[in-house]
Amino acid sequence: MKLLVVNPNTTSSMTRKIKEAARAAAHPETMIIAATSQNGPASIQGYLDVSTCVPGLLEVVNAHPDADAIVVACFDDTGVDAVRCVTSAPVIGVGEAAYHAASMISPKFSVITTLSRSLAGLEANLLRYGLDRRCVRVRASDVPVLKLEENDPATIDKIRVEIRAAIEEDRAEAIVLGCAGMTDLMSHLSEEFNLPVVDGVACAVTFAEALVKAKLTTSKLCSYS
Amino acid sequence: MKLLVVNPNTTSSMTRKIKEAARAAAHPETMIIAATSQNGPASIQGYLDVSTCVPGLLEVVNAHPDADAIVVACFDDTGVDAVRCVTSAPVIGVGEAAYHAASMISPKFSVITTLSRSLAGLEANLLRYGLDRRCVRVRASDVPVLKLEENDPATIDKIRVEIRAAIEEDRAEAIVLGCAGMTDLMSHLSEEFNLPVVDGVACAVTFAEALVKAKLTTSKLCSYS
Amino acid sequence: MKLLVVNPNTTSSMTRKIKEAARAAAHPETMIIAATSQNGPASIQGYLDVSTCVPGLLEVVNAHPDADAIVVACFDDTGVDAVRCVTSAPVIGVGEAAYHAASMISPKFSVITTLSRSLAGLEANLLRYGLDRRCVRVRASDVPVLKLEENDPATIDKIRVEIRAAIEEDRAEAIVLGCAGMTDLMSHLSEEFNLPVVDGVACAVTFAEALVKAKLTTSKLCSYS
Amino acid sequence: MKLLVVNPNTTSSMTRKIKEAARAAAHPETMIIAATSQNGPASIQGYLDVSTCVPGLLEVVNAHPDADAIVVACFDDTGVDAVRCVTSAPVIGVGEAAYHAASMISPKFSVITTLSRSLAGLEANLLRYGLDRRCVRVRASDVPVLKLEENDPATIDKIRVEIRAAIEEDRAEAIVLGCAGMTDLMSHLSEEFNLPVVDGVACAVTFAEALVKAKLTTSKLCSYS
Amino acid sequence: MKLLVVNPNTTSSMTRKIKEAARAAAHPETMIIAATSQNGPASIQGYLDVSTCVPGLLEVVNAHPDADAIVVACFDDTGVDAVRCVTSAPVIGVGEAAYHAASMISPKFSVITTLSRSLAGLEANLLRYGLDRRCVRVRASDVPVLKLEENDPATIDKIRVEIRAAIEEDRAEAIVLGCAGMTDLMSHLSEEFNLPVVDGVACAVTFAEALVKAKLTTSKLCSYS
Amino acid sequence: MKLLVVNPNTTSSMTRKIKEAARAAAHPETMIIAATSQNGPASIQGYLDVSTCVPGLLEVVNAHPDADAIVVACFDDTGVDAVRCVTSAPVIGVGEAAYHAASMISPKFSVITTLSRSLAGLEANLLRYGLDRRCVRVRASDVPVLKLEENDPATIDKIRVEIRAAIEEDRAEAIVLGCAGMTDLMSHLSEEFNLPVVDGVACAVTFAEALVKAKLTTSKLCSYS
Repeated sequence: MKLLVVNPNTTSSMTRKIKEAARAAAHPETMIIAATSQNGPASIQGYLDVSTCVPGLLEVVNAHPDADAIVVACFDDTGVDAVRCVTSAPVIGVGEAAYHAASMISPKFSVITTLSRSLAGLEANLLRYGLDRRCVRVRASDVPVLKLEENDPATIDKIRVEIRAAIEEDRAEAIVLGCAGMTDLMSHLSEEFNLPVVDGVACAVTFAEALVKAKLTTSKLCSYS
Repeated sequence: MKLLVVNPNTTSSMTRKIKEAARAAAHPETMIIAATSQNGPASIQGYLDVSTCVPGLLEVVNAHPDADAIVVACFDDTGVDAVRCVTSAPVIGVGEAAYHAASMISPKFSVITTLSRSLAGLEANLLRYGLDRRCVRVRASDVPVLKLEENDPATIDKIRVEIRAAIEEDRAEAIVLGCAGMTDLMSHLSEEFNLPVVDGVACAVTFAEALVKAKLTTSKLCSYS
Repeated sequence: MKLLVVNPNTTSSMTRKIKEAARAAAHPETMIIAATSQNGPASIQGYLDVSTCVPGLLEVVNAHPDADAIVVACFDDTGVDAVRCVTSAPVIGVGEAAYHAASMISPKFSVITTLSRSLAGLEANLLRYGLDRRCVRVRASDVPVLKLEENDPATIDKIRVEIRAAIEEDRAEAIVLGCAGMTDLMSHLSEEFNLPVVDGVACAVTFAEALVKAKLTTSKLCSYS
Repeated sequence: MKLLVVNPNTTSSMTRKIKEAARAAAHPETMIIAATSQNGPASIQGYLDVSTCVPGLLEVVNAHPDADAIVVACFDDTGVDAVRCVTSAPVIGVGEAAYHAASMISPKFSVITTLSRSLAGLEANLLRYGLDRRCVRVRASDVPVLKLEENDPATIDKIRVEIRAAIEEDRAEAIVLGCAGMTDLMSHLSEEFNLPVVDGVACAVTFAEALVKAKLTTSKLCSYS
Repeated sequence: MKLLVVNPNTTSSMTRKIKEAARAAAHPETMIIAATSQNGPASIQGYLDVSTCVPGLLEVVNAHPDADAIVVACFDDTGVDAVRCVTSAPVIGVGEAAYHAASMISPKFSVITTLSRSLAGLEANLLRYGLDRRCVRVRASDVPVLKLEENDPATIDKIRVEIRAAIEEDRAEAIVLGCAGMTDLMSHLSEEFNLPVVDGVACAVTFAEALVKAKLTTSKLCSYS
Repeated sequence: MKLLVVNPNTTSSMTRKIKEAARAAAHPETMIIAATSQNGPASIQGYLDVSTCVPGLLEVVNAHPDADAIVVACFDDTGVDAVRCVTSAPVIGVGEAAYHAASMISPKFSVITTLSRSLAGLEANLLRYGLDRRCVRVRASDVPVLKLEENDPATIDKIRVEIRAAIEEDRAEAIVLGCAGMTDLMSHLSEEFNLPVVDGVACAVTFAEALVKAKLTTSKLCSYS
């Protein structure tokens, strides 16, 4: 199968990191096509970026009509519903994938994202999915998306502080990493804190494969027609 | 990977059907171990069956400590939380798998199950998962679980009536088949009604593979410790 | 005060109708600037149109930096949160305005919109606003947006059928007209059915004036910064 | 238009303050009739006052049958539904007006009221309106209503403490002043804390004007007949 | 124990019927004091009656300071919170008692009340109690409260129609009679329809005895202080 | 009447304590039959115990077919729905009884239970009952169930700490003791903290008597048939 993984921002170093994570999680026979948007913001932080990146995202999707499934690799799940209108292949956002996965391995989870400017949008998504009932809290680490590309240890420390608070204050039993750019942090934080740390890229990729294997496609009956 | 698929009722013809569906959905390299409970009701319909089948289910699970993931093949997701307490492998119920899958391919879905006696329990599960927000209605077809084993065309007609009502009255855009014993009906009903018909067995199997590939395990921090 | 009323689709006959309704509702001293998007779909029906019209909407807004308040004249409230990020003036969508108004004059209301393709998006908005608790149902009349421009009596009859159903089946005590293009129908349907029929354009215009008079501006503390 | 603003407690110094705020927010051509209840508690704090002030409120309303709109100037929105039964003019409580306004300028707001005895009633109102989904928290300042009439700086300091907590702990992006007697604090607290501080009196007055301009009246179909 | 049962309307024939029902349900050693309000509407139907009957209700309660528990015998639970402010004895409304009882004997119930004018208020109560999650629907029989005093068989037939609809359309598994004046209908309708028919007077009386035996009193910590 | 009170764990010292509490709350003429499960865990803490104790509980119930009402004396309300399938007598869990009682004497309550492992299950119950809307928080004292049998003063101190936090942080106005083994603590903690402290055993016993006096039985129409 061909799996299109679109980074809807224009930062290609981030696409590379996302592609590596996708490759590591996917079955060997899955072909991963990782594409960067050519038209939009350099990172997606807050309502304005979320809105303005959609045309660029749609261009990438329309350029790959033969994809068997599509992953939108932005934790805000921006444009996911619009993409579902232009394809019958399954379309999954990395945010929703992570929330659904966390719901199946823990009773309650917290999300740790980048800037507080993004919180309201993520909370609105959780509400729409119904998974606000399983998410105790969405926390901002105050690390900008592009800062994650620098591998600064101080950055990870800020995320650590929030994980600790999520466990102690929120009684979260799993952590969702709330940015596609955090995809490389999952494994060692999970060991360090002894609880599942969920990366949306890995979840979206493996869920996309799952939907294809289960022969499910996007409903074209009404809303996505 | 070894995937344990447990039928928590004692009807082995149903286990065979479930195994076939699991095999069809799984990757070729996944080893499917389909096991029938040795101790419990012949079918699971209503609160009493849901409660009394759990010890038999746990016996099967405890007999397979090397499973990499476990699917509980009863649409009521009976005992799923209890099973999570005895393993760190991912554990998925076919009900929850179907609901999560349906949420990713449609804005709203309806469930069609067997007897009306089961409705309250399924609604309570949806509420707990938060996915009542995406499920318009759970419908009973008044077909008893074991009747599904007889391949009587009148049985399928009763399910057809409910699918039509779900589309017209509930404005559902996907249908979830609310019984593990309906697993063989998915593909032709989907074509017939031109919308996704979701079978929990296929979803649970492929999601279990997905969680294993994404390196996620059941949280042992608190509730499932 | 200068009130910018943006039609985020590119159909200027619709902008004219919206302008008339705005002018009729506004105080004489309010200057109404009605502007049509230059870049986007001809009508906004469903997720794809909702997403792709935002850049054109933002261009119009950015071209009028001196507006004291902004009305987004699309019932989907598309781009409202994005517009709030580029101005500190109050920004109101005609959908949200109508819902808030209906909540203050009736205990329960129903919405009557154009195509069923738009229902899921409107329901998601109501959920986010909390006003799903006051809205009994969103109904589709199956009248396309641009058909409303033709003044065909059959069109109004379809809306009448839904109003009657909303009163009888939903027990709605007010009706919200779910499309900016229905703005001219409010007064006579209200008389005919003897209940308030709420037009979002009138509400958004007068609420925008209200917020300006009450000296309230968009919060720039975090999400809209 | 004639706008009746009723203070449902018997403290006329409070009515004077409310009238000033109403006058400042209203259009010059709006005639403000500010009336004090002649029969009821001196201030409205908690369930007992909320219940016992209604007959006095209704007397005032019935004495002004020619009002084009009515504002109930008590933050508990006491008697608003009862008043809607005796008039077809729009009737707005200052609490609901403030919540609706705050929803249109911020994603999340907190309310700061007087005594903790009033919290449960305000929370019940928010629930009924659906706006509990937008209100993070209702906070008590422990300032009694009538203490607000004394202009003691210590009083304002207590409110400041709660605003700071609402911003830092609740992540509120707007503040609603939860008492009609706080109406004179809005502008300077808004500047001081650099976020919208919403006064219900100003909102209710301008929204009442808005509904009249939009030609909306209270639904007399059923609940308010 | 002394149990004060207050009819907050002024119709004494209704008080007699309520007293009989209370006497039949109570333990022999419980002294039932049934009192009629001296000041208020003849029946309580809709928001206006609900508000205006409270002062008369409080007068009755204040005249019986030695009551060990108080039942407010109006299905709207009018004034219950206010009464809790003037006593530390347990105070129960017949509406809430019926909802709590129905929740303990069925997964879902429907309510059948008098006029549709009362629906919005009852729904608001259910929301506040949280028991809207267990109540499928509140139905109006269009029988005015005082009509119930006439023992007209046509009246009971209208209630029968709604019970049948509640079973068939709402899938209700218990029926709550939504008016204190229906208290004499419980037993034979329950037999006729073969499901529990819940009368609030019997429930409120026996729950009041229960709270007294369990040594529970109204919390005076804050809201009811 | 004969009231069967079943302790679904196998610790008979706990049954003795429960029987004493039941006896103290019941009417003298009620015959209390307190029975200990012969087959299951020694205490019920977390999902695994909740599931595995049900068969033993059902054995006890089936051995007492003449009970007029049944109390399941485990705060998790384990097996309550299953027991309702084997009897038409009213069946009440001590958890639900306590929540319903607390709702009638306070606007908001907090629960204080034993281990944090039990929190998710209790929260799921509250959600299903709808009473999560009245419960501010479920708190773990980290006291294991069987530790309560030792009467260690340090144990009570841990509960005291949580009561204080519930009052100060949660603004709870009543406390629910979240374990049948805490039944002897109710009266003196209530006095000490000057608010209602609710014990589920006393509530379940007196509510069971109430339902019998009100002639209500478990609905056998569908889910419990």
